[in-house]
Amino acid sequence: MRALVIHGPKDLRLEERDPGPLQNGQVMVRVQAGGICGSDLHYYNHGGFGVVRLKEPMILGHEVSGEIVEVAADVGSLRRGDRVAVNPSRPCGHCRYCLQGLPNHCMDMHFYGSAMRMPHVQGAFRQLLVCDAVQCEVGHNAGADELALVEPFSVALHAVSRAGSLLGRRILVTGCGPIGALVVAAARFHGAAEIIVTDIVDEPLAIAARLGADRTINAAQAPETLAALAVDKGQVDVMFECSGNEKALRAGLEAMRPRGIVVQLGLGGDVAFPQNLVVAKELSVVGSFRFHAEFALATQLIDTGKIDLRPLLTGSFALDDAVSAFALANDRRRAMKVQLSF
Amino acid sequence: MRALVIHGPKDLRLEERDPGPLQNGQVMVRVQAGGICGSDLHYYNHGGFGVVRLKEPMILGHEVSGEIVEVAADVGSLRRGDRVAVNPSRPCGHCRYCLQGLPNHCMDMHFYGSAMRMPHVQGAFRQLLVCDAVQCEVGHNAGADELALVEPFSVALHAVSRAGSLLGRRILVTGCGPIGALVVAAARFHGAAEIIVTDIVDEPLAIAARLGADRTINAAQAPETLAALAVDKGQVDVMFECSGNEKALRAGLEAMRPRGIVVQLGLGGDVAFPQNLVVAKELSVVGSFRFHAEFALATQLIDTGKIDLRPLLTGSFALDDAVSAFALANDRRRAMKVQLSF
Amino acid sequence: MRALVIHGPKDLRLEERDPGPLQNGQVMVRVQAGGICGSDLHYYNHGGFGVVRLKEPMILGHEVSGEIVEVAADVGSLRRGDRVAVNPSRPCGHCRYCLQGLPNHCMDMHFYGSAMRMPHVQGAFRQLLVCDAVQCEVGHNAGADELALVEPFSVALHAVSRAGSLLGRRILVTGCGPIGALVVAAARFHGAAEIIVTDIVDEPLAIAARLGADRTINAAQAPETLAALAVDKGQVDVMFECSGNEKALRAGLEAMRPRGIVVQLGLGGDVAFPQNLVVAKELSVVGSFRFHAEFALATQLIDTGKIDLRPLLTGSFALDDAVSAFALANDRRRAMKVQLSF
Amino acid sequence: MRALVIHGPKDLRLEERDPGPLQNGQVMVRVQAGGICGSDLHYYNHGGFGVVRLKEPMILGHEVSGEIVEVAADVGSLRRGDRVAVNPSRPCGHCRYCLQGLPNHCMDMHFYGSAMRMPHVQGAFRQLLVCDAVQCEVGHNAGADELALVEPFSVALHAVSRAGSLLGRRILVTGCGPIGALVVAAARFHGAAEIIVTDIVDEPLAIAARLGADRTINAAQAPETLAALAVDKGQVDVMFECSGNEKALRAGLEAMRPRGIVVQLGLGGDVAFPQNLVVAKELSVVGSFRFHAEFALATQLIDTGKIDLRPLLTGSFALDDAVSAFALANDRRRAMKVQLSF
Repeated sequence: MRALVIHGPKDLRLEERDPGPLQNGQVMVRVQAGGICGSDLHYYNHGGFGVVRLKEPMILGHEVSGEIVEVAADVGSLRRGDRVAVNPSRPCGHCRYCLQGLPNHCMDMHFYGSAMRMPHVQGAFRQLLVCDAVQCEVGHNAGADELALVEPFSVALHAVSRAGSLLGRRILVTGCGPIGALVVAAARFHGAAEIIVTDIVDEPLAIAARLGADRTINAAQAPETLAALAVDKGQVDVMFECSGNEKALRAGLEAMRPRGIVVQLGLGGDVAFPQNLVVAKELSVVGSFRFHAEFALATQLIDTGKIDLRPLLTGSFALDDAVSAFALANDRRRAMKVQLSF
Repeated sequence: MRALVIHGPKDLRLEERDPGPLQNGQVMVRVQAGGICGSDLHYYNHGGFGVVRLKEPMILGHEVSGEIVEVAADVGSLRRGDRVAVNPSRPCGHCRYCLQGLPNHCMDMHFYGSAMRMPHVQGAFRQLLVCDAVQCEVGHNAGADELALVEPFSVALHAVSRAGSLLGRRILVTGCGPIGALVVAAARFHGAAEIIVTDIVDEPLAIAARLGADRTINAAQAPETLAALAVDKGQVDVMFECSGNEKALRAGLEAMRPRGIVVQLGLGGDVAFPQNLVVAKELSVVGSFRFHAEFALATQLIDTGKIDLRPLLTGSFALDDAVSAFALANDRRRAMKVQLSF
Repeated sequence: MRALVIHGPKDLRLEERDPGPLQNGQVMVRVQAGGICGSDLHYYNHGGFGVVRLKEPMILGHEVSGEIVEVAADVGSLRRGDRVAVNPSRPCGHCRYCLQGLPNHCMDMHFYGSAMRMPHVQGAFRQLLVCDAVQCEVGHNAGADELALVEPFSVALHAVSRAGSLLGRRILVTGCGPIGALVVAAARFHGAAEIIVTDIVDEPLAIAARLGADRTINAAQAPETLAALAVDKGQVDVMFECSGNEKALRAGLEAMRPRGIVVQLGLGGDVAFPQNLVVAKELSVVGSFRFHAEFALATQLIDTGKIDLRPLLTGSFALDDAVSAFALANDRRRAMKVQLSF
Repeated sequence: MRALVIHGPKDLRLEERDPGPLQNGQVMVRVQAGGICGSDLHYYNHGGFGVVRLKEPMILGHEVSGEIVEVAADVGSLRRGDRVAVNPSRPCGHCRYCLQGLPNHCMDMHFYGSAMRMPHVQGAFRQLLVCDAVQCEVGHNAGADELALVEPFSVALHAVSRAGSLLGRRILVTGCGPIGALVVAAARFHGAAEIIVTDIVDEPLAIAARLGADRTINAAQAPETLAALAVDKGQVDVMFECSGNEKALRAGLEAMRPRGIVVQLGLGGDVAFPQNLVVAKELSVVGSFRFHAEFALATQLIDTGKIDLRPLLTGSFALDDAVSAFALANDRRRAMKVQLSF
């Protein structure tokens, strides 16, 4: 079977790989759809991000769905023909953090398509994938393209859960890439009273509006609109910082009301941080990293139609056109979520 | 009566002032002890801090205790001769934040000895002080010097309350000025399992040990000891950042375990902030600002002897020697908390 | 103007009253719609409930909306012609609980149409009502009938807020009167994953389904369906007990998973309570009483159409037919929420 | 080796047993001290409690300490000669609750000396005990008698953790058996401002006073003192109900302030529960069951002398005098915590 392997910046190759043997508790999935994520783009554009660098060839991809084509023993209720979203997160299950209910902080995590550890963990942009039954969530209604959104939507749901209850809260989402847009959908579902989204590009803001945003602000063109939220000590209850951008963070912090909560998802490296403002308003800046229980929830919400994420889908490319897909995914004016079909 | 008035950097004057009339619900306090705080020092050394600048002469001081010498009507159970700690915080009592139980975020706060608003709020370094009965907490056992510690101890108790339960937690306190040292005492009282304190000067660390610290680290001389706390994703559950120092913050963040809580008290202006680390460990960075209900609690704990803060007291100077007192308070090797007597 | 006055059990009279003078900060509202609440029915059927007993004639009613017909000075942005929901809750604003952000526990509460204090607080089933401007929330789109649902919906939103985040939770609502049905709508809006409702009558369950319930169980006819939720230590994350019924509480507690949260709204007096079960599962049983900030939120959600509560409305009666309205409201098979028009 | 076996009510026998083989990851402990717990007494007096009944002979005991006399491979840092407290709780480590950080709700728990499952889990009142290394917490300073208090103190620490922060709170502890007394010590350590304890017997109240209670009330002799706590909607912030007694619960609920927290530890079966009071005050009644992480914390606090629990120790009996020990343990006027030596 063929897999999409990154060897270095801009060096993406289709290679033949062996899917490997099927063991007890495992299933073989014929991958159908795979979404290109920001980290995939970082590997493609720069060979990594921050201290995480490619040191060997690695199959990309961690947002995939597909159909089960073979089952081993002990796979519970899974059956051949089931359409599933595949959870790329494989915590060890017995370290201190796994046993505290925090497997996203596992001391021995294997996460698909990640160069954080050596040897790298190979990803899921491949035609056949052998995985554990517990990684599979079955969809009964949703298409493969929607199920490939389960993973990034899990990230958004986890971020929303880090903020506590949103009931009646005014929300600010800074940065409207796929994660920001998915946070809009999650916050809407979780009872936010008003959702405001900012970006410096108009096109993704239009998609956020379709996903439930009440107001969109182009922070480059209308910074005064954002600044107006800072009156009377600030008007925003909860902020989701999805850009990693220093300016966006600062403008957001100024818009926060005392005791507001800022959930940080964006990865911007070292940024200037207005300590005095955080102290004087008693803000809480809370990191959010990946997900766990949210994977099952995301599948259920998408599959039952309680949330419709299709406005997010930009289009799908055949595996042979992977380079075109990555090029499009790099263009925020034209692309929100680009997928591959296998 | 005489008051200690700051006119500009290093320009401290003793001036004659009228204590003003006594109204219903008010008492007149003969001030006995007044502690010099970091903000007093900032006004004295630099004429302010950050954007807060002296624009007119201002009586300094907000950590005071004294004896009631006169009472108006409607002062509840207060009596002449009562020894009281005086709360320098005067929220309006009817704005949105006051009615949410967050009077430290009052939209119309008057806080003694503060140049944040214009005209400045005159402080309490004066021989006679007319204040509202509700500002007074009576001590039955503690001396005036101890009652003048109620205010900064309230700041520490509030910070501790911002962290949630400390039961069984390993605590790191970075920066061992008076607030850091008081946080040690508060965390010890609140059930911390282990308290580690860092500073770059040895003398205050010795005082922290007397107040309940289990370990002290001179971060300048033994940075490797602090770095060792970063193993296995970090060993610290809760950090109180009392220095405002960028290096202390970063070293502390690296020592935090996943989902740890960082309470920020130090005011360091803009600092470089490792966003990726906060995200990957899902840390919470939580501002703490002043206090409210903690003022009564601090009085009770000091007055009943449940907490003994006397190791903190460096010495007391007569009002005429105020300049010497401020000079000593500036020297961290010799002074922890310097007080004036009136 | 005429008002609906209860003199004793089944003794409801239309009487002429003076609306009283308009003072600064007040408006006069021509009442348009008023919902009959369970407590109104208790006064009508039994002259009170528990220890709360009618001791003097009292105007009933606390779920009203209407049009402003006169404004005094200092009423902010309110104008003649505004359609408003009127908050029947009048906390004192300066007691200990008001200043802790808990005005529903005000030491000196005046709540419309309540015999809890003597003299009783007269209610709002009257043609003209003088009230404080702060009691009024303006609706721009919703009809008077919908705005008269703001008050009971506030009760439901408050209950939901007492449970913390519902994101991804399986919810059980026991008792499907108006409050139970409104809790269904609130829990759906607040991100519940699955909502199960029980009652012993089918008709209200059908309405709950229209408001967002995923499953309805007639606990009298299919107790085994409810019992099945108790497998594997229990399957329910959060329960809203809206019946006050001992059997419903017990069946619900058995269905709760360990660490589940039970929000108690129903007022059933003394009930047998399985202490050992609460201990062994470490359940939290949390009371919910009235509302506060939720009144503005309820108005916004109804008025913007984010929540459609019209399935709840049974019908409206003219004031002259009040006795018929109360008779219908007593019949759970035919009535969910009966309103009066004035 | 000999073990203390319960065959039925009042039928306690010393029997010879085989300690069994030592496997990898295990140690053999020569048991030195074992505390008699309320559940041991229930088996002895009544053959069980509630639905839990003896169906076969069972070795009693789950509060033990001793010396390691033999170690297998893979026991970490444990060594022969180590004095240890032995954790009687053996969760499975891989069920849904274990992986949520809630092993006290393990679907497959084995807890020493418990007849909850069949076959019963044999207890630790025996001369030699083979257990897993992870069950052992080493003490360096405390005696065996103190280390045998680690288990019940863990129960108290867990209860305190269920209440959230106690900083500045007024605490009521109802029922002053060993658990009530240990809750007093735990609440004092965790920063409670004032601790009030009630019982209907004076002798245990005197011990509670030595462990840190500020006030003791004999509820049988001075019910009016307890009733006085109910003024102004109630004066108690957090209650620990350790009696399982209906009257104690009710009197306590009346003393609670609005939004107060009641932690239920006592197991009284079905009790009458004033639902309306819980609703109107918005109380939280929270179950607390056993412990988990608290076992290590309890060992540390006892072993480092941060908490001195010796006032609790009534005395120690040789194994041959077990019946006398149980008889004394039954007499609350003479006994708080009776221990066996092996």
